[in-house]
Amino acid sequence: MLPNPKLNLSGERFAVIYRIAGATEEEARQKAFDVAVEQTVEFPYELTPPAIQEAIVGRIEDAQPAGDGRWLFRISYAVESAGGELLQLLNVIFGNSSIKPGIRVESLELPDTILSLFPGPRFGVAGLREYLGVPTRPLLCTALKPQGLSADQLADLAYQFAVGGIDIIKDDHGLADQVTSPYIDRVAKCAEAVDRANRETGRKAIYMPNVTAPADRILRYGRLARELGAGGLLVSPGLAGFDSMRMLAEDDQIALPIMSHPAFLGPFVTHADNGISHFALFGQIMRLAGADATVYPNWGGRFSFAKAECAAIAAGSRVSMGSLKPIFPAPGGGMSLDRVPRMYEVYGQDVIFLIGGGLFKQGPDLVANCRTFLGMIS
Amino acid sequence: MLPNPKLNLSGERFAVIYRIAGATEEEARQKAFDVAVEQTVEFPYELTPPAIQEAIVGRIEDAQPAGDGRWLFRISYAVESAGGELLQLLNVIFGNSSIKPGIRVESLELPDTILSLFPGPRFGVAGLREYLGVPTRPLLCTALKPQGLSADQLADLAYQFAVGGIDIIKDDHGLADQVTSPYIDRVAKCAEAVDRANRETGRKAIYMPNVTAPADRILRYGRLARELGAGGLLVSPGLAGFDSMRMLAEDDQIALPIMSHPAFLGPFVTHADNGISHFALFGQIMRLAGADATVYPNWGGRFSFAKAECAAIAAGSRVSMGSLKPIFPAPGGGMSLDRVPRMYEVYGQDVIFLIGGGLFKQGPDLVANCRTFLGMIS
Repeated sequence: MLPNPKLNLSGERFAVIYRIAGATEEEARQKAFDVAVEQTVEFPYELTPPAIQEAIVGRIEDAQPAGDGRWLFRISYAVESAGGELLQLLNVIFGNSSIKPGIRVESLELPDTILSLFPGPRFGVAGLREYLGVPTRPLLCTALKPQGLSADQLADLAYQFAVGGIDIIKDDHGLADQVTSPYIDRVAKCAEAVDRANRETGRKAIYMPNVTAPADRILRYGRLARELGAGGLLVSPGLAGFDSMRMLAEDDQIALPIMSHPAFLGPFVTHADNGISHFALFGQIMRLAGADATVYPNWGGRFSFAKAECAAIAAGSRVSMGSLKPIFPAPGGGMSLDRVPRMYEVYGQDVIFLIGGGLFKQGPDLVANCRTFLGMIS
Repeated sequence: MLPNPKLNLSGERFAVIYRIAGATEEEARQKAFDVAVEQTVEFPYELTPPAIQEAIVGRIEDAQPAGDGRWLFRISYAVESAGGELLQLLNVIFGNSSIKPGIRVESLELPDTILSLFPGPRFGVAGLREYLGVPTRPLLCTALKPQGLSADQLADLAYQFAVGGIDIIKDDHGLADQVTSPYIDRVAKCAEAVDRANRETGRKAIYMPNVTAPADRILRYGRLARELGAGGLLVSPGLAGFDSMRMLAEDDQIALPIMSHPAFLGPFVTHADNGISHFALFGQIMRLAGADATVYPNWGGRFSFAKAECAAIAAGSRVSMGSLKPIFPAPGGGMSLDRVPRMYEVYGQDVIFLIGGGLFKQGPDLVANCRTFLGMIS
């Protein structure tokens, strides 16, 4: 009933490793085949024209037992299915299959044909180190909060953090364009405060405002941040969309480092049998989408990530991905100063320590607390 | 250590009902309090300035046992926390708490102050019926696929569907801007094919291309679709972001009905103890973000939604939300013609029946299959 189209494809494929649950390997293989069909033609296989069955439908390339009734299936897709777009790439990887229980994206294997479409992180680990003038030690980061403080009050905090030696002073991801500290007012004042501190200390701290802004304003707000003196941008791609972050990262008028925030992405990593692995989501995909640093909750804080999951994010931040630069893992989420030595041990040098409220708990003198923090890793 | 700001807020609140798991009510209440803090100040409560504790931190307004070690907590937030933006509203509702297991968003209670910021669906049920000239019966929808067919071949399918009496002919959500059927070429040809069929039949079918496009192109592609004769737009907000869909819905140059697709949103509804309820995600939030119809997998198809979950989506599509119009539930995902009578019974008249591959399985004559489909509900 359907014509058999003449397809003129390159033959190049990319692959996704899925972790699939099944009572038997046969059942898991059937689910893998359903993924291969669902993620491409989404059409009864037997009615699919032969040329499309051959070139477009996903191919099960490999299957490995993973224990406990789980298998790792490697499924490849035509690079043309992704259409050269990040969102469509993510759609092929997991669009509809995200709705089926027992299927998790473990990792991505992307050839240069696809990787070269996405510049990825503009700075990466080496670039951000050079930009900040910090050649070897871990970077220090904190967040401006709580919501409800005025722009002047947040700017005063930013000044103290910068004087105390924090490298990256970011907005809390809950600061948007509220009346208590409107975006433009806040960005102007906090950028100025950090700049003033830098002139006094001779160091280079940067201010990263949150630009998880409305779709019709996000690019303008990103550029405005640069004009107002911001030194980077914070984005929550779970809210704004991964492609909005990519757009900000690629914009040559902005040309600032980007830090991704995990807000609204929790359900992807809550259950080991569903969603996307920590490695792929907070490592590989954040890099594809242009983040120079990936924020996530460290083990042992207010959230529930395990130590191995955090190590997987760090691995995904530096795993070889063609020309895509390695990026900084930025563990946070209820960290305190006393945990720094152990984190340092686990993550090594190429890490951003993100401590928010914990910096305040140390004592009444914020500048002194920052110096303690800096002293622990210098 | 922190100044106590002078807050001049309206005192108006919006509320979220969370379903929270706990070994005891006390444990669940502690988790609810953590949500109230996490979703607002994300700061040690005891160090939060009193004015912010009072006005900004979420307030537990009510708690009800929900059986099986689950409680429903109603937490209210200052309307100012949402900053008048959809993404920040979603961020307050569930940003960081999405990363904590055992917390699910059940439903939203939004006052007119917030609802009036979001026009929501431009057409809604009544508007879409008027636009299509179908006053009472369920609407019929199908999808152009499989990926791999050329624009001409897809246009030929669109023509047959329109002649056969389908109301809404949408792109499969896997059609993007691939070389096999590039966006502009496909939209022009499919819109023309449907228009030609309409002139022959005297009916009004519409073509809805998929505009889940890159962030720097999505608005332009939406407008281009309108110029090329498309009658609506398909968007996957799980990929493009909810605010991109809102932007398309609000754009007066586009002014077309919008259908939302659930791609990439599966993990939010996979586990009853996490994520967002079907009611809130596919009903309330899709409406807030401007969808006129919400696509989701019906029970009994290729996916795993239960009948009660589908009924909850239908309820969320029409529950009172101030001036926001009710919208169409559009169940699909492996539906076949023989299931139409039972679905009709459950959903009533105000539903869009979405049948894709099932239309092809019926027999070799697509036009005849469409007429059978139409005959079942007229």
